[in-house]
Amino acid sequence: MSNKYSLGIDLGGTKIAAGLCKDGEILKKVVFPTSVSNGTQHILKTMVDAAKQAMDGQSIENIVGIGIGAAGQINSETGDVIYSPNLNWYNVPLAASLEKEFKIPVRVLNDVRAATVAEQKFGNGKGYDNFANIFVGTGVGSGFVINGKLLNGATNSAGEIGHVCMDPNGPLCGCGKKGCLEAYCSGTGMENYVKNELKKGRNSIISDMVEGNIELIKGPIIGKAAEQGDELALKAIKRVGYYLGIGIANVHTLINPDVVLIGGGMTALKSYFMPTLLETMNTYILPVAAKNKQLIKEAKFENDAVLLGGAAIFA
Amino acid sequence: MSNKYSLGIDLGGTKIAAGLCKDGEILKKVVFPTSVSNGTQHILKTMVDAAKQAMDGQSIENIVGIGIGAAGQINSETGDVIYSPNLNWYNVPLAASLEKEFKIPVRVLNDVRAATVAEQKFGNGKGYDNFANIFVGTGVGSGFVINGKLLNGATNSAGEIGHVCMDPNGPLCGCGKKGCLEAYCSGTGMENYVKNELKKGRNSIISDMVEGNIELIKGPIIGKAAEQGDELALKAIKRVGYYLGIGIANVHTLINPDVVLIGGGMTALKSYFMPTLLETMNTYILPVAAKNKQLIKEAKFENDAVLLGGAAIFA
Repeated sequence: MSNKYSLGIDLGGTKIAAGLCKDGEILKKVVFPTSVSNGTQHILKTMVDAAKQAMDGQSIENIVGIGIGAAGQINSETGDVIYSPNLNWYNVPLAASLEKEFKIPVRVLNDVRAATVAEQKFGNGKGYDNFANIFVGTGVGSGFVINGKLLNGATNSAGEIGHVCMDPNGPLCGCGKKGCLEAYCSGTGMENYVKNELKKGRNSIISDMVEGNIELIKGPIIGKAAEQGDELALKAIKRVGYYLGIGIANVHTLINPDVVLIGGGMTALKSYFMPTLLETMNTYILPVAAKNKQLIKEAKFENDAVLLGGAAIFA
Repeated sequence: MSNKYSLGIDLGGTKIAAGLCKDGEILKKVVFPTSVSNGTQHILKTMVDAAKQAMDGQSIENIVGIGIGAAGQINSETGDVIYSPNLNWYNVPLAASLEKEFKIPVRVLNDVRAATVAEQKFGNGKGYDNFANIFVGTGVGSGFVINGKLLNGATNSAGEIGHVCMDPNGPLCGCGKKGCLEAYCSGTGMENYVKNELKKGRNSIISDMVEGNIELIKGPIIGKAAEQGDELALKAIKRVGYYLGIGIANVHTLINPDVVLIGGGMTALKSYFMPTLLETMNTYILPVAAKNKQLIKEAKFENDAVLLGGAAIFA
């Protein structure tokens, strides 16, 4: 199969990216906006168009398969999207729909799990039988490779590290539960913390940066304030490291991976949160288990991880 | 191999139990005390004696192998005991030592992981590709079967659920860390909670039951007090359920098993803690993941789980 290509599709709530891939490289990539308001059929048509353009004139005989990473809960056996809040989809037979169009195998994984396949086959998880790939961005998710295989779990929801409870009385998460890791460590969680502190009257240059409109506060603004030594910004970012360190220690205590990869937009702030992360991780990890290990590594792939991971299912 | 036997040994800090096993049944069992103060060689000799007596006249040719479940951190590839606080052992080549004596294969697993193999092959984990087996007794431990295989992890410490951090400022655990699940949910954790509450001046019939000597408080006494409706006893036991429910929800969120087995001495109190356990579990679990599932089941094997699990390595 090594002289053949595969197609990868990153199906997100704002954009659909499709790429012609070979051996972990993207040879051609196209990006379309996701128009959620136009409904399911429109999104499916956009995916077909994107895939066709990404094929770049290659005949379908040269494509081994289409692999999709989609934001949401996926049945990876059937290729159905069970539920995707970002797409407003319930029970959409995604793989079947594209197989009908292209007559080649189509596989679907949750987006973070797809990115994990990219890291496993072509990225910084290569060579490890057991690793965790943690994505820390607007949300927090992860994928686990265990004994060399991606873990899907009994109901295709393994690796939802963002929804591990860190404190039963903690801040409300977007999922409706309290104290989820995501409520502390995601960009949204960090922003909410800063907004709440400002509402309590705390001083920070962030107020001036958004001209008093605290609803405009976003991660990059907090990052800029941290660059200028703003105490609240630094505290908010360190808080991400504090909880992420405990979360990673707990993952290590449970599944004892060789390595933990960290990727996602929040890594732009890593110089501020990593010292705290390593401190809490080393405090709450089992010492006998972690001995002599450089446990944390960065993920290799950034924006293209999901697309490459989709394609990598067939690599 | 079905007409052959295997030997299982449960190597604990207080007793060594050896048994001749076949198809998940113990045909003959012997138990000796573990004399930790007499040192490593004495314990090894006791294991050899126990194994020989358990063979019950069978010739060694009819024994496929010896499987040992030992309390501590084990290198399951080499069969070395890396560290066992209960035995006061560091780097003891346990498998090699018994192989030299018996000239048949010897395998060693951590005791809870061995019990998990018993549940997988002959117990209530049978038929599940993914399950967690949680032991709640004097300590708290677990074993995970993932994609049909026991998970050992990169440094043979996967499944240490007792040392997952539930609260970074929580009570001190025997391991030296704060807020471990074991510090809340083990028999010891429950006893410590009751002792501390009594020291604070809280009323309870438990004080009378130990004639004011609170150091005598043990799990069964708390159970007896609960039977009589004692508020402190009931609160202490429910607290076990509260944290265990969150801990199980978190395991589910991460590895998404088909089923979670619970065993160990604390299950004697299950009628008091199970309602609270189910309540917090259902509050902190991802609903989409847990849907339509009866997640919790009891482990099948009680006191013989480790011995049977050792033998089951060769079944």
